[in-house]
Amino acid sequence: MGEFELIRKFFQRPVRRSPLGVGDDCALLAPAPGMQLAVSSDMLVEGRHFFADVNPQLLGHKALAVNLSDLAACGARPLAFTLALSLPRADAAWCQAFSDGLFALAAQHDCELVGGDTTQGPLNLCITVFGEVPTGQALLRSGAQVGDDIWVSGTLGDARLALDALLRQHALPPAVLAQARQRLEQPTPRLALGQALRGIASSCLDVSDGLLGDLGHILDASGVGACIDANITRGLLHARRHPLMAALATTRIDACTLAGGDDYELCFTAPASAQTAVREAAQQSATPVTCIGRIEAQRGVRVIAPGGQQLPLRFAAFDHFA
Amino acid sequence: MGEFELIRKFFQRPVRRSPLGVGDDCALLAPAPGMQLAVSSDMLVEGRHFFADVNPQLLGHKALAVNLSDLAACGARPLAFTLALSLPRADAAWCQAFSDGLFALAAQHDCELVGGDTTQGPLNLCITVFGEVPTGQALLRSGAQVGDDIWVSGTLGDARLALDALLRQHALPPAVLAQARQRLEQPTPRLALGQALRGIASSCLDVSDGLLGDLGHILDASGVGACIDANITRGLLHARRHPLMAALATTRIDACTLAGGDDYELCFTAPASAQTAVREAAQQSATPVTCIGRIEAQRGVRVIAPGGQQLPLRFAAFDHFA
Repeated sequence: MGEFELIRKFFQRPVRRSPLGVGDDCALLAPAPGMQLAVSSDMLVEGRHFFADVNPQLLGHKALAVNLSDLAACGARPLAFTLALSLPRADAAWCQAFSDGLFALAAQHDCELVGGDTTQGPLNLCITVFGEVPTGQALLRSGAQVGDDIWVSGTLGDARLALDALLRQHALPPAVLAQARQRLEQPTPRLALGQALRGIASSCLDVSDGLLGDLGHILDASGVGACIDANITRGLLHARRHPLMAALATTRIDACTLAGGDDYELCFTAPASAQTAVREAAQQSATPVTCIGRIEAQRGVRVIAPGGQQLPLRFAAFDHFA
Repeated sequence: MGEFELIRKFFQRPVRRSPLGVGDDCALLAPAPGMQLAVSSDMLVEGRHFFADVNPQLLGHKALAVNLSDLAACGARPLAFTLALSLPRADAAWCQAFSDGLFALAAQHDCELVGGDTTQGPLNLCITVFGEVPTGQALLRSGAQVGDDIWVSGTLGDARLALDALLRQHALPPAVLAQARQRLEQPTPRLALGQALRGIASSCLDVSDGLLGDLGHILDASGVGACIDANITRGLLHARRHPLMAALATTRIDACTLAGGDDYELCFTAPASAQTAVREAAQQSATPVTCIGRIEAQRGVRVIAPGGQQLPLRFAAFDHFA
């Protein structure tokens, strides 16, 4: 199977919305009047973002999901994406499974593949995703205000719990691992919530490198600090709810929920006066949200334990070169 | 140097045109009214597209140039690009040189870096480039008509000549190698010509995998065939003009010009009645163009030698998995 047959067979689908899709030098996109185009690129590298023996269907899902999560974080509606793919060899079964996972998620969010590149080399996936957002309404990192509530969607830390178990750093009961592993391998981009938060959230991003590190980007961009309630964040580790997990150490829970990474949940701020609006946006998008703390004038992040004392922070956000 | 410092230091520049650039979850683009957005992604992999010891400044140039060449091929004006970069380590000198080469070409074409991703892994560069083109005026591959002239810009085959010499498949006089190597390492995207050809060319693409293979894409998309004059294409190898190169074998000249690859010249078709308009577009964009043949109804490509006989075609376009 040659390069062009591979593209035709697994990655060329007719486009319905874009004026021109796969097969020319460029794809053409035409955002509707009054709309800005939101763009994000994410690259996934074997051995860094996934194991060499990863299920290719799950990888197809995840490669697109982590990009869609960036659109969710700015409140954009998905339109299209490009895929640049470096593959060690043209393996038909692998490509079929990968494209099944990719297109299943794409169809779910009405996001069409419009172009890309295929090359031979170490396994590497680079997706660039395009969405539209009404001009001036994109959710940014820079709008958090002192007194705002800090919210996160869904649950936190289960992906990291699964990763540590897969790396044999600790054991998990099989039923718990299966569920946590799904969070690691099949993250859910919170697109409906992101769009519902337009005009409500004062800042927003998606948690990919760990809550505290990513929240730090909001704090830096907004020139503020934050106080987080560890009693609440500890409750966000879904695996903890399993009866077999009652003995899980608090330090591990904190490491997973505060600095786990790979969550792809939204972390956002909103004025206290918008609490009802936030809860309505959550209900409308069928996405649970939890208020975990508050924006303060004092720079930095303080995490307060149930007894009222401040937790020593030994966590850093994931850094590829640290 | 950590990931975020690396981004800040080498890859974060203020944006002037785009509403939002590097540093948020998404960049925001706003094409002008009446414009479509042209999008293309290209991935460059160490060992496939460049040598491990490549000069990083030249690599920065080439990574963006091959993407801009796709915009040129559809007649678009560059606006912005994203860069996803997988690096073995955070090497400041390498990053500085790479970003120097990248931003020098970007500045030349008023194309701003708006976002991307940085990760650790085998050296791999994925650029997605954005341009704008008036709605309905993009140059496509599908418009070639029987009787149209076939044109190429600039010169053909010198990049391949240099590559073969660097791979020690043949020797070249140092002065010839230096010039040919520049074509390999610092290709010139033909942006001004592409834009000048809007409304004139009936089809267009950029020659990256070799003339005959790429012309084949136009022929397939347009449902036509072509006849090429080898006497003319042989004259397009720039190195041939050097006195020391008079003895270069015709078979090597044909291999380089017809199937060399890495040329990043435009190959386009236009009605015979548009010859004056084509020459004016070439003059206006200060880009030499040469008519090399004609579109015919009979499918396939025929290359005619100076004696009138048809050359046997043993060339195939570059295929990553063939």
